Amino acid sequence: MKKEIEALFHECIMNANEEELAVIKQLLDGVKRKQSKESGSYIGGIFGMSRKMENDVLEVTMPITPVIYNSLHIVHGGVTATLIDSAMGTLANMMLPEGYGAVTTNLSIHYVAPGTGGFLSGKAQIIHKGTKTIVIDGKVHSDDGKLVAHCTGSFFIFKRS
Amino acid sequence: MKKEIEALFHECIMNANEEELAVIKQLLDGVKRKQSKESGSYIGGIFGMSRKMENDVLEVTMPITPVIYNSLHIVHGGVTATLIDSAMGTLANMMLPEGYGAVTTNLSIHYVAPGTGGFLSGKAQIIHKGTKTIVIDGKVHSDDGKLVAHCTGSFFIFKRS
Amino acid sequence: MKKEIEALFHECIMNANEEELAVIKQLLDGVKRKQSKESGSYIGGIFGMSRKMENDVLEVTMPITPVIYNSLHIVHGGVTATLIDSAMGTLANMMLPEGYGAVTTNLSIHYVAPGTGGFLSGKAQIIHKGTKTIVIDGKVHSDDGKLVAHCTGSFFIFKRS
Amino acid sequence: MKKEIEALFHECIMNANEEELAVIKQLLDGVKRKQSKESGSYIGGIFGMSRKMENDVLEVTMPITPVIYNSLHIVHGGVTATLIDSAMGTLANMMLPEGYGAVTTNLSIHYVAPGTGGFLSGKAQIIHKGTKTIVIDGKVHSDDGKLVAHCTGSFFIFKRS
Repeated sequence: MKKEIEALFHECIMNANEEELAVIKQLLDGVKRKQSKESGSYIGGIFGMSRKMENDVLEVTMPITPVIYNSLHIVHGGVTATLIDSAMGTLANMMLPEGYGAVTTNLSIHYVAPGTGGFLSGKAQIIHKGTKTIVIDGKVHSDDGKLVAHCTGSFFIFKRS
Repeated sequence: MKKEIEALFHECIMNANEEELAVIKQLLDGVKRKQSKESGSYIGGIFGMSRKMENDVLEVTMPITPVIYNSLHIVHGGVTATLIDSAMGTLANMMLPEGYGAVTTNLSIHYVAPGTGGFLSGKAQIIHKGTKTIVIDGKVHSDDGKLVAHCTGSFFIFKRS
Repeated sequence: MKKEIEALFHECIMNANEEELAVIKQLLDGVKRKQSKESGSYIGGIFGMSRKMENDVLEVTMPITPVIYNSLHIVHGGVTATLIDSAMGTLANMMLPEGYGAVTTNLSIHYVAPGTGGFLSGKAQIIHKGTKTIVIDGKVHSDDGKLVAHCTGSFFIFKRS
Repeated sequence: MKKEIEALFHECIMNANEEELAVIKQLLDGVKRKQSKESGSYIGGIFGMSRKMENDVLEVTMPITPVIYNSLHIVHGGVTATLIDSAMGTLANMMLPEGYGAVTTNLSIHYVAPGTGGFLSGKAQIIHKGTKTIVIDGKVHSDDGKLVAHCTGSFFIFKRS
C-alpha cells in the first residue's frame, strides 16, 4: 500500500499550486497530530482544532483555510457545526463522573454571518445539567469578535459499558 | 515548501499502521479529486462525498472510515451535519434560477442512532419553496437502511452580485 | 365566588361586539367540553381542538378565530406550536405500552406561511421510535392545503410512577 | 346570540367545582383585559400575560393555573412556547424602526424541567440583529428560579405595507 500512496502523493504535489500545497501540508500535519495523540481524532487534527477551558467555558478554535471552504468559497456550514459540536460534546463529557459518557441528541444552529478572517472560535457553556440530559449553549465567533453562529445542543447521558 | 511537505509526508508514512495509511490515502485522494475538479471543495473530496439526483431527492453518500470518527470512535456528529447540509445546500441551489444563491440560516438535527456500516447516505427533499426562503427535509441513513439522523434546514435566497 | 363571576360575565357581554361575543362563546364552549370530559384539557377545549388517527398519522384540527390571533391579527406562532405539540405528544403517548409516558424534550418549528382560512390541521407522524426517545415529524396546513409550519419534536420516554 | 351565551354560561357555572370556577374567572378576566385594550390579544388576556422591559431584556410572565395544563396536568409545552414566542416577538418588534415588523421564522425549544410553582417567566434577549433577520435567545424560568425551557428564535424583518 505504501508504494501506491507514495505515487499518489507525488501526483498530488507535482502540479500543485500554492493553495493545494498548503492544504496538503495541513492534512498531513493533522494526521501527524493524531499519530502523536496530540489530537483525539483525525477530524480534530486535519481541521487544526485546539481547545482550552476557562471559567466553565470550553473553547475550540480552528484556522480558516481552503480546507474548510464549501464550493462557494466560504466556510462550510457543516464545519461550523463540527466546531461547535466538538466544543459542546467535550464540555458535556467533562461534566460527567468516570464511567459515563454523553452523545449529541439534538443540535440547532442559527447561522448569522459568514465565517471570515484568520480563525473561528467556538465557545460552549452549560445551560442545564440534569440526570439524563445536558443542554449546552454554543456560540461561534470570527477573530474580529463578530458572531457567526449560535447553537443549542442536547446531550444524552449514558453509562459506558 | 515542497521539500518541507515531502519530509512531513515521509515522517507520517514511515511508522504508519494500516489505519493511518488508509487515512492518508483517503485524504490525498480527496485533494486529487479537488485538483481535477471532480469535487467542488476539499471537504467533499476528503470525505469522499458523491451525489446524485433522483425524483426530486438529492442524495449525498460518504464512506464510513476513521477519517470521520470522533474521539469515541463513532461518526462525528458534525460530519453527519456536514453530509446533510451538503445535500440540502446543493438541492437549495439547484432550485434557483441563474444569478441566485442560497445559504443555510438554520439547521436543526435530531440524532437517533450511531452511524455504522460501510457508508452514510444523506437525502434532501424540498418542504417549502418561497420567494425568500427554502425549507428542506433531510434524512441520514446507514447502509442497512436504518435512520441515523433527521434534519430540517432553512435557506435564505440571495441575489448573487 | 359565583356572584363575582356572574358580575364579571355581565360586564363582559354588556358592551361586547360581535367578535367579543363569539370569543366568549368559544371559551365557554371549551370549558363545557372539559367539564364533560370531551376534551382532556382546558387548552384543547378553548382552542376547539379535535383529533383523529388514520394510517399512523395523528391529526389535530383547530378553527381559526380571533381567540388565537396575536396582536398583529394573524395566528399566534405559539398557538401553532401548541397545535402541533398536541398532535405529536398524543401520538408519542399512543405508541407506548401501559405504564409509560412521553414528554417533549425538543421542538423545532419552521414557520413558512401565515395561518389563514377556516382552520388549521396539524399532522404528526413517527420518524424514529427508540427505547428512550421518539422523534416525530409534524406539519401544519391551512384548509386550502398550504403548508403553514413544519416541525420536528423529540420525546423522552419515562416510566409512570 | 347573547341569550345563547347566557344559557351556556349558566350551564357552565351551575355545577362547576372550585377549579372550573377559577378557570371561567380567568378566561372572562382575559376577555375584559382585551376589551379594555390592556391586552393586545385574547391569548395574552386569557393566559394572564404581563410584560416589562429592563436592561434590554423583555420579560413576559404568566400565572400557572389549570387553564394552561395539558392532559397530564403539567404546563402544556405549547403554552411555554407561546410565552417565550410572545417575549421574543415583542422584543424583535421593539428593535425595529417605524414601518417595519418581524415575524417568527424558526423556533427551537429545549424543555428541561416541568413548569411548577406560581408562575412562569419568559425572558428574551437579542443575540444578533441583522438587516434581514434577528436571532433571539429566550429562557423560561419557574418562580423558584429554575430553568424550565431554553429557546432560540429567528425573526424575519419585513416592511409593513
